[in-house]
Amino acid sequence: MNEHFSPVPLEKAYRLINHGPTVLVSARHGGVDNVMAAAWNAGLDFSPPKLTVVIDKITRTRALVEASGLFAVQIPTVALAALTRAVGTTSLADQPDKLQRAGVECFAVDGFDLPFVAGCAAWMACRVIPEPHNQATYDLFIGEVMGAWADDRVFRDGHWQFETAGPEWRSLHHIAGGHFYAIGAALDAETAS
Amino acid sequence: MNEHFSPVPLEKAYRLINHGPTVLVSARHGGVDNVMAAAWNAGLDFSPPKLTVVIDKITRTRALVEASGLFAVQIPTVALAALTRAVGTTSLADQPDKLQRAGVECFAVDGFDLPFVAGCAAWMACRVIPEPHNQATYDLFIGEVMGAWADDRVFRDGHWQFETAGPEWRSLHHIAGGHFYAIGAALDAETAS
Repeated sequence: MNEHFSPVPLEKAYRLINHGPTVLVSARHGGVDNVMAAAWNAGLDFSPPKLTVVIDKITRTRALVEASGLFAVQIPTVALAALTRAVGTTSLADQPDKLQRAGVECFAVDGFDLPFVAGCAAWMACRVIPEPHNQATYDLFIGEVMGAWADDRVFRDGHWQFETAGPEWRSLHHIAGGHFYAIGAALDAETAS
Repeated sequence: MNEHFSPVPLEKAYRLINHGPTVLVSARHGGVDNVMAAAWNAGLDFSPPKLTVVIDKITRTRALVEASGLFAVQIPTVALAALTRAVGTTSLADQPDKLQRAGVECFAVDGFDLPFVAGCAAWMACRVIPEPHNQATYDLFIGEVMGAWADDRVFRDGHWQFETAGPEWRSLHHIAGGHFYAIGAALDAETAS
């Protein structure tokens, strides 16, 4: 990655998804890489940081995650909206060249045998905390965040910088079909009490 | 509620939280009502609609949810930012008048013994799908959505109308402390393939 790829302290990693962005989930096993989109993700714990993500049985990514016990969660941006839509609507099972067609470029991070999607705003390397009942019944996976990084043009000093980064850096928030919202204006709320 | 309180078809209910808003969770038991804020929520299934939400053991709401087996999830707006921050930073255990101090007004919906927070953009009545291991280990609750409603000034015809509603209707997306983002601009993504 480029010089903007910066580590995020693990105790701040929850902030990468606390505002509810749609994420890309990537995984690798047996020489196969895949990437999918997932709106149904959420924080689960601060320290060690954990998160939940729903990975449907129909996805090819699911098998890679279950086989490897690892997955990456990354936060795509407005600049990657078409890519996000593409990886969320096509399957590697039908399109062996899915990632190339969608314009996905992956990069490596030392110490993690995972494909990381270039151009995202932030990345987390996760290990699966096995919960077979949740996985089988709800397609619900729990991951512990083992490493976190961000592009320092949009997240630095433990905070998102959407206010000053260009609009192409805003996170994506999926509704349905091809319809998304970008994250918007910052506001600081004082308590009413 | 007023004339803008409108039912949302259950098969569209997932769209109320698909974009990752911070929500208010409310519950009632034994004559006690409470409301808390929860950024860690996500969709879990389309039909019947299910969702996940993390409800910490430290919260007073947790005991009400576990005792009643019910909770409401509602989507606060920019206009309710101070209220959202207040209910997320104070406890009924310390402040018996927490809701009044935070400016929370509740209303009733026929058929659901739950307090619903007035002024929100949308509401869901949920029953707990008991998963004692998840609840005890991760503070993670699974709810099935039994009823869904929205204010038709900001959600109608199965879609959010943030583009045309006033800025005070935008959903809130919490980062940390008093820092939130409002949801932003709409974009429609065509696939790259």
